[in-house]
Amino acid sequence: MTTEHFAIGVDLGGTKIELALVNRLGQILKKLKVATPAKEGVTAVIREIISATQALLQGTEAHPLGLGIGVAGQIDPAGETVRFAPNLGWHDVPLQAELQQQLELPVALLNDVRAATWGEWLFGAGKDCADLVCLFIGTGIGGSVVSGGRMLCGHSNSAGELGHLTIDLHGPLCTCGNHGCLEALAGGWAIARRAAQAVAADPRAGKELIRRAAGQGGNITAATVASAELAGDPLASQIVTEVAEALIAGAVGLVNAFNPERLILGGGVIEGLPELVPRIAQGVKQRSLKVASTKLQVLHAEQHNDAGVIGAAAFALQSVIGNEVHS
Amino acid sequence: MTTEHFAIGVDLGGTKIELALVNRLGQILKKLKVATPAKEGVTAVIREIISATQALLQGTEAHPLGLGIGVAGQIDPAGETVRFAPNLGWHDVPLQAELQQQLELPVALLNDVRAATWGEWLFGAGKDCADLVCLFIGTGIGGSVVSGGRMLCGHSNSAGELGHLTIDLHGPLCTCGNHGCLEALAGGWAIARRAAQAVAADPRAGKELIRRAAGQGGNITAATVASAELAGDPLASQIVTEVAEALIAGAVGLVNAFNPERLILGGGVIEGLPELVPRIAQGVKQRSLKVASTKLQVLHAEQHNDAGVIGAAAFALQSVIGNEVHS
Repeated sequence: MTTEHFAIGVDLGGTKIELALVNRLGQILKKLKVATPAKEGVTAVIREIISATQALLQGTEAHPLGLGIGVAGQIDPAGETVRFAPNLGWHDVPLQAELQQQLELPVALLNDVRAATWGEWLFGAGKDCADLVCLFIGTGIGGSVVSGGRMLCGHSNSAGELGHLTIDLHGPLCTCGNHGCLEALAGGWAIARRAAQAVAADPRAGKELIRRAAGQGGNITAATVASAELAGDPLASQIVTEVAEALIAGAVGLVNAFNPERLILGGGVIEGLPELVPRIAQGVKQRSLKVASTKLQVLHAEQHNDAGVIGAAAFALQSVIGNEVHS
Repeated sequence: MTTEHFAIGVDLGGTKIELALVNRLGQILKKLKVATPAKEGVTAVIREIISATQALLQGTEAHPLGLGIGVAGQIDPAGETVRFAPNLGWHDVPLQAELQQQLELPVALLNDVRAATWGEWLFGAGKDCADLVCLFIGTGIGGSVVSGGRMLCGHSNSAGELGHLTIDLHGPLCTCGNHGCLEALAGGWAIARRAAQAVAADPRAGKELIRRAAGQGGNITAATVASAELAGDPLASQIVTEVAEALIAGAVGLVNAFNPERLILGGGVIEGLPELVPRIAQGVKQRSLKVASTKLQVLHAEQHNDAGVIGAAAFALQSVIGNEVHS
C-alpha cells in the first residue's frame, strides 16, 4: 500500500485509447493502449474506457485519486460534456458524469491538446515556467497558452486554436473554411496537399517524391516529404522551406501577442522534421519584436507521445487536490 | 471633505500630457491637458507632470489614493521603469520612484494601450466581462487581452502587441522590420502609404484623394482616405475594403487564439471609419471557428479619448486598494 498520489491519465482519440497510471511527479508507472470502438457508438466507447481502466489498475496497489481524460474535441467550459468530437462522431456527450458514476472516482475532462500542454508545462519543456505557448504540429495544428501561470481557456473554453491564425490573407483554403490559416500551410494534411500539387505541376521535379509514395502522387504524406528532404531531394527541400516560413510567420505573431518565455514545438511534423525547431527559433528571433524575443527560448517538446496521458493525469490531480501538484 | 475613493490618471504621450481626477466608478471630476516638453529632457517632463498634477488638485477637496500613469512605451515587468519610449526619447527612466518621491503618493506605471484597456474593461465596452480583446487602430496598432478576468502581461510585460501579428506572409514591410504585420496593412501610417502608392500608380483614379490632400499625394493621410470614402470616391473605397479585409484576417486570428467574449475596437482609424466595426463583426462571424465566434460580440470602444486617463486611474486604485475597485 502506497501513500503516493496517483492519477489515471487517458487520451481518447478516434482510433485508439491510451491510458497510464501516473504519479504526482509525472512518472508513468504502467500504461495500456486499446482500440477505440468509435463505430459502435458512445456507450461502447465508454464501456471500453471503463474496462481498460480496470485492466490498468489490476495487479497494482495504487489507489488513484482521480482520472483525467483528454478528448480530441470541444469540451464545455464546465468540463462536463464533450460538445463535439468529429473523429468520434460525438455530439454533447456528458462524459464526466458517465465515467464518474461508473468508476466512482473524480473525473476531470479536457481537450487533448490542452492535456498535452499540461504535460509539457508541469513535467516537460515548460517546467517551472509561467508564460509558455505550446504549438503541436501534426496532421492539424493545435496549441495552448499558459500566461502568468494560468492555462488560458477563453469564454467558450476554446482558447488556443493556434492553427487558425491567418498568416496569408491570400493563401489556400483551410478545412475550417477560412483562407491562409497556419494549418492550411504547415499542418500535415496541407504539406501533403502542397506536395501533391507540386508533383502534378512538375512530375520531373517530383520524381523522388512519387517514387517514395509507391508511384502515386496522391499517396504523398508529410512523412514522405520529410524522408525525401532528408535524402536531399530539392523539391521536398523547397516544400520544407515553405513550411518553415509559414511556421515562423505564425510563431512571430504568437510571440508578439503572448510574449511567452518559452515557445514549445511538438507533434508529428516536428518529430519528422526536428530541424524545424532551430529554423523556427532563428526566424522568430530575427522577426519578432525585440522586447518580446530577447528572453525567449524556442524548445522541442519533451514528452512526445506521452504528454497527453501525463497531462490528463496531472490535470486530474490538480482538480482533485488543487495546487499541491504544482509544488 | 469626501470619503470617496479617487485617483489621478495620467496619459503621457510624446506631444501632450493628459491628466484627470477620476472616482472609483470611472467618472472624471476634473481634467487638464498640457504640452509635453519632450525636447527638454526627462527632468523637464517629470517637472511638468508634477506641476500639472498640483494644478489638477488645486481647488478640489479630493485626496487621491494614488496616481496611475500610462506611457507610450515599454514598461518593465515590475512597473517601475520606462524601458524605452521612442516618442519621448526615453531609455530606462525610473519614473515610478521619481514621481512617488516628489508627489508623496503611490504611483502605478503601465503602458498606455494597457491603460486604455483597463478603462474599457472596467467602465466601457468591456464592463463585467472576463474575456476580452481590445484592438486600438490608430497610426500604429496596439492591443491588450483580458483572459479569465486577468490582464495578460507576458514574460517581459509586452503581451498584446497585436499590431504585429503576421497576416500576409508576402505582404509589405512593417516599421518593426517584419513583413505583412497587421499594422503594415491597416495602421494609419500604412493606409497613408497604400494611398500614396495607389495615387502614384494611377493619378487619374487618385484625383479626388489628391484634391483633398491639397494637391500632394504625399500629404494623404488615413483621415483623407476616410473622408474621400465617405464622399463615395471609388479608389478610397477600395483602399478601405483592403483595410477591412486585413482587420478581419487579424481579428479572426485573435478570436481563434484567445476565444474572447468581446472584441473591442477603438483608435483613430475606427473613429474615422466607424463602419469598419460592423464590417469586421460580419467578417469575423463568417470566418472564425464556430466554437469561438458563436457567443462573440464585436463592439466599438466606448471611452474614446478618455480611456487612457480613466484606465490609468483605475489601475492605480486597483494597485493601492486591491480588487475593491472591481466590486
